[in-house]
Amino acid sequence: VTTPGDDPTVGELSEGEILSRILARLGASAALVGPGDDAAVLAAPDGRVVATTDTLVHGPDFRLAWSSGFDLGWKAAAVNLADLAAMGARPTALLVALAMPNSTRASFVEELATGLRAACESLAPGCAVEGGDLTVSDTLTIAVTALGSLEGRAPVLRSGARTGDTVAVAGHLGRAGRGLGILFGRFRDAAGEPVPVDPRELSDEEQTALGAQLRPEPPVALGVVAADAGATAMMDVSDGLLLDASRLAAASGVTLDIDSSALSGDLIDALTGGEDHALLATFPANAPLPDGFRTVGRVVAQTPDGVRVDGRGHEGRRGWDPYRDWDAHGG
Amino acid sequence: VTTPGDDPTVGELSEGEILSRILARLGASAALVGPGDDAAVLAAPDGRVVATTDTLVHGPDFRLAWSSGFDLGWKAAAVNLADLAAMGARPTALLVALAMPNSTRASFVEELATGLRAACESLAPGCAVEGGDLTVSDTLTIAVTALGSLEGRAPVLRSGARTGDTVAVAGHLGRAGRGLGILFGRFRDAAGEPVPVDPRELSDEEQTALGAQLRPEPPVALGVVAADAGATAMMDVSDGLLLDASRLAAASGVTLDIDSSALSGDLIDALTGGEDHALLATFPANAPLPDGFRTVGRVVAQTPDGVRVDGRGHEGRRGWDPYRDWDAHGG
Repeated sequence: VTTPGDDPTVGELSEGEILSRILARLGASAALVGPGDDAAVLAAPDGRVVATTDTLVHGPDFRLAWSSGFDLGWKAAAVNLADLAAMGARPTALLVALAMPNSTRASFVEELATGLRAACESLAPGCAVEGGDLTVSDTLTIAVTALGSLEGRAPVLRSGARTGDTVAVAGHLGRAGRGLGILFGRFRDAAGEPVPVDPRELSDEEQTALGAQLRPEPPVALGVVAADAGATAMMDVSDGLLLDASRLAAASGVTLDIDSSALSGDLIDALTGGEDHALLATFPANAPLPDGFRTVGRVVAQTPDGVRVDGRGHEGRRGWDPYRDWDAHGG
Repeated sequence: VTTPGDDPTVGELSEGEILSRILARLGASAALVGPGDDAAVLAAPDGRVVATTDTLVHGPDFRLAWSSGFDLGWKAAAVNLADLAAMGARPTALLVALAMPNSTRASFVEELATGLRAACESLAPGCAVEGGDLTVSDTLTIAVTALGSLEGRAPVLRSGARTGDTVAVAGHLGRAGRGLGILFGRFRDAAGEPVPVDPRELSDEEQTALGAQLRPEPPVALGVVAADAGATAMMDVSDGLLLDASRLAAASGVTLDIDSSALSGDLIDALTGGEDHALLATFPANAPLPDGFRTVGRVVAQTPDGVRVDGRGHEGRRGWDPYRDWDAHGG
């Protein structure tokens, strides 16, 4: 039994009580059948639906000492919206599977719902949470599935880049990785455990980097713009530019040659920093780039490198692989 | 570095190596764009898509001492396919978000993929895994999103039951709960920890119950059949007949009166056992029930009870609420 003003744990509430607190913060459904039945029914006007899923796990993907409930909801939405954008799709709906310890505070769950809604409203107006699932887990986990519409367009795949195309990027490169470095480097205790961030210790530039890590703002609307502008290939840059560019290059059977002078800030951050959620796209050489994209290189005939920087293969770490890199982050 | 014949852990493999082991076991994609890009593109021929998500978490939902990788993949698919069936939809695709400890064996992941495929082929031919996500987690977690097509039909909601309708069920009631009781009652050590099942200790009937718990076979194809036969309301029975019937009754503004003589086996198991994934549906009184459904009661005008058994309110536990009941399961 709780009284007004309490902040109960989810273990003290029924599933229905938790759900009603979440639903009250999600805003209006735009679905044919929204939350509350066995499944949602969504419009797919052109007879196709684009679908992707991405998960945030406490430990490898976020720490409660560093991320608020709002941050977590925002980021879980944003990273999935970015994957839809990378296909040239307009996001229409999210499904959210939330697994959390019984000790989780109801207020945290409410903030998480608010963050999901805010990210949708800011990055993909018209998209809303239309379904989900609540379970108990020792490890706080949020698995989001995002659905979108191509509105008659062909999907922009990773495999369409052709020799001679322009390589372009929309969004920032390196900021989110730099933000993660700030957290691991400066906001852990002697035992390596995360401690809350004191923003007074951060410069404006550092606060911007931290914001890019905790509440990324991928250029979701530019996915449709790029598709309409004739992008030949596109992908979300989530594991570092070099690693993701090598994936696009392999899918297309080409090599991407990156011009380091086109990258701003620290070069290694820009080439290998993870979680940027920028859009990497290729366009025909003669096509004008849409606003928001900048040229960062060009597509050349396939070489063993897959990706080159200033015409040469790049030595060393290329980006983020969750299975290889997680231990290295310690903490 | 691994040699042939090894069974490496996922922590010893790259994300790409794990993915290729999984993809090799999933069978052919039926999607317009299948696994491997930022998102899948799926056909939605009637301009709508049905979408649902359900998660299995190690601890509350399964134990590795009791469930094989195959079992886990099968169940994760089956419980989601059941939710689509309950809308009257034909399943078309699964997205699978798999979060697992670095110590997980590659062979376990391969068996899980085989189980996902086998459940789709058995329960929903034509449906396949078309996308997913791999992450590291201290807690093995599998979050599945299932997508389906209504093929021009109206969705069958929980809210359509009308006074006088027949209440019917397809699938078994009580078996899966009985299987869980066998596991908790007979296959734990002195400290309460799960130990592997020795099938020689089980009667045929007990093995059937255990199978219903570990590898449920919901009557997925009967969802479409029920919709075509004019079902007025339908839902997946996952939390016990009484609890789920009360939800359908509340959504429809009616009461469901269950006839206990129509339930087979132990009455309490049938009324309150969780994880049956049977289909509960209501049909107009004059409509012949489709094959596979049996009458278990009728819809009456709304009473404070919501659901009645033999005309009376039912005292005591109604079913499974993950947040209230998890601790009670111990172990």
